[in-house]
Amino acid sequence: MQFMFKKRDNIKEIEEGKYLSPKFDENGLIPVVTTDFQTGGILMHGYMNDEALKKTIETKKAHYWSRSRKKIWLKGQVSGFVQIVKEIRIDDDQDSVWLSVDIGNGASCHVGYRSCFYRSIPLGKIDDGKKIEMKFEEKEKKFDPEKVYKGQPNPTKI
Amino acid sequence: MQFMFKKRDNIKEIEEGKYLSPKFDENGLIPVVTTDFQTGGILMHGYMNDEALKKTIETKKAHYWSRSRKKIWLKGQVSGFVQIVKEIRIDDDQDSVWLSVDIGNGASCHVGYRSCFYRSIPLGKIDDGKKIEMKFEEKEKKFDPEKVYKGQPNPTKI
Repeated sequence: MQFMFKKRDNIKEIEEGKYLSPKFDENGLIPVVTTDFQTGGILMHGYMNDEALKKTIETKKAHYWSRSRKKIWLKGQVSGFVQIVKEIRIDDDQDSVWLSVDIGNGASCHVGYRSCFYRSIPLGKIDDGKKIEMKFEEKEKKFDPEKVYKGQPNPTKI
Repeated sequence: MQFMFKKRDNIKEIEEGKYLSPKFDENGLIPVVTTDFQTGGILMHGYMNDEALKKTIETKKAHYWSRSRKKIWLKGQVSGFVQIVKEIRIDDDQDSVWLSVDIGNGASCHVGYRSCFYRSIPLGKIDDGKKIEMKFEEKEKKFDPEKVYKGQPNPTKI
C-alpha cells in the first residue's frame, strides 16, 4: 500500500486539520477502541501498527497488531468472527483510534463473550483491606473458546 | 486509600474470576476509554495509574494520569467539565478500562468539542501517494479553549 500518513509537524494542523497523521508510540503502535455498531458498547481495546491501520482503512476489515504473537492479525482469521468496519475516527492529537464495527451475532472476546468488557467494577467507598468483587454483565458465552481456539496459545499474560 | 487490587497470579482467575486485578504497563499505566452515558459515543482515550483508578472508583469522578504533565488529574478541574462515573468495566485480561460517564451538556475535549473523536477517516482504497482527508463529524465547539484553558500548556505533542 503506497498511500501516506501526513507528517506530524504542526500542532494546530494535527488538532484542527483534515489530514490523517497518526502518532505511533515508541513501539510503533497506536491504541484502538472497537465498539459494536449495533449496540454502541465497547467490544475490545487493542493496538495497530502503521500497516494494520492502512489495511483496516483499505479492506474495511479490522486488522490489529498482536502484542503477544508480535504480528499483524486479521481479527476473525481463526474464530471466523471478522469485524466489518462501519466507521473509523481518530482523536484530537491523533494518538488513538475508534473503530465502529459490525460483528453480526458474533463475538469479539477470546474468552467467548460478545464483548471483552463483560465485568463491571462496583463504585463507591471500599473498606480497608478489601478486594474488589466485580459483577458479570454478560452471563452466557457466545462460543466455546476451547473448541474455537483449540491448540492456540492464550493471549492473556500474567 | 487502603483497599487492594488482587495480585495477578493465575490466568483463569484474571479472565473468569470476580476479583479486580488490573495490569499496569511498564510505566505503571492502564489505558482507559471513556464513553458518553447519554449517547454511547466515545468521548476520550486516556490513562490511569493505580491511584487514579482507586480515586475514580471511590469518588465516582473520573481521574486520569496526565502523561504530558506527569500527574494525577481530576478531569474538569480547570474546565469545570467533571465526568460523573455511571459504570466502570474492565476487559478479559484486565489491561484496559471502560468508563461510562455523565457530562451533562458539557465537553470532554481540550480542543473544544464534546468528544475528542470529532473526525472520521474515509474507508476504501486510497490512491498511491495520496494523503487521507478526514471529515469533521462535529461542527461546533462547545466552548472556547483559549478562554477556558488560558495560560495552560497544550497537552498535544508532535
